[in-house]
Amino acid sequence: MQDAIAAMTRQLSALRGLLQKAEDHCAARRIDPSVLLGCRLFPDMYPLSRQVQIACDHAKGAAHRLAGREVPSVPDVETTFAELRDRIDRTATLVRELPAEAYEGAETRTVTLKMRTGEVTFTGRDYLWKFALPNLYFHAATAYNILRHNGVELGKRDFLGAS
Amino acid sequence: MQDAIAAMTRQLSALRGLLQKAEDHCAARRIDPSVLLGCRLFPDMYPLSRQVQIACDHAKGAAHRLAGREVPSVPDVETTFAELRDRIDRTATLVRELPAEAYEGAETRTVTLKMRTGEVTFTGRDYLWKFALPNLYFHAATAYNILRHNGVELGKRDFLGAS
Repeated sequence: MQDAIAAMTRQLSALRGLLQKAEDHCAARRIDPSVLLGCRLFPDMYPLSRQVQIACDHAKGAAHRLAGREVPSVPDVETTFAELRDRIDRTATLVRELPAEAYEGAETRTVTLKMRTGEVTFTGRDYLWKFALPNLYFHAATAYNILRHNGVELGKRDFLGAS
Repeated sequence: MQDAIAAMTRQLSALRGLLQKAEDHCAARRIDPSVLLGCRLFPDMYPLSRQVQIACDHAKGAAHRLAGREVPSVPDVETTFAELRDRIDRTATLVRELPAEAYEGAETRTVTLKMRTGEVTFTGRDYLWKFALPNLYFHAATAYNILRHNGVELGKRDFLGAS
């Protein structure tokens, strides 16, 4: 369980690196950063900034729910690359503050999510593997894909981050 | 460890569903399926067909390496949606054939990969969390993003697959 939480914060750290390269790209090409932050792969998909916020929320949510704690609310107010990197840092801090022993029994803990379609109940194990992890990777990969699609020079190593 | 392998085959099964919807989309709009299979998000990224092949190879590789077995070679020859769905089915079969007891000690097993830059050695645990899992989700999400970018009607539920 803690391997999974560590993998999630590692992925956020890699995402932080992607955002730094994206900001540098904007500076070098005189691109307004807010344009890149507003880019989407299709009109009804979320823009880059929201992909980052959602990735953060999946890591924060997974760590707290699996640790049996209330999920702290963080408002979605970031409009710059620096603010999004700070959001990632604050998310990592929130996750690190949870004590290791809080994850005892996490696999069988009941996790209830309020979805648009109603409440959904998982075991901690199913919540992690069928919801939180694939969602976190999905939003991190989509952020990467938005940047690549817009010409930011990144490679798979940037997605995987420091090993 | 086996939860991770199950998550990987579940993700491939969801990817299979995406490919079926993509093929149906082509039929309904009279789109040549080979055009959609050749779509990329950027000229130096892999096309849809290759994203699917690589996702399959990460699941096959992870299961066999973590089970201490030689990784069976599967040629990359698929050119149609039906062939790619069959590739996913054959991958799932290869993974399912590995006995549960083969994963004993997988976390500490030495895994050596031949990369373009030379050999890289991981523990089984690091290989899973720092390489195989993020790579599999990356290629599955990129396949989804290529389809969404090209107007195929899919939602997050299609990415997550059956729970």
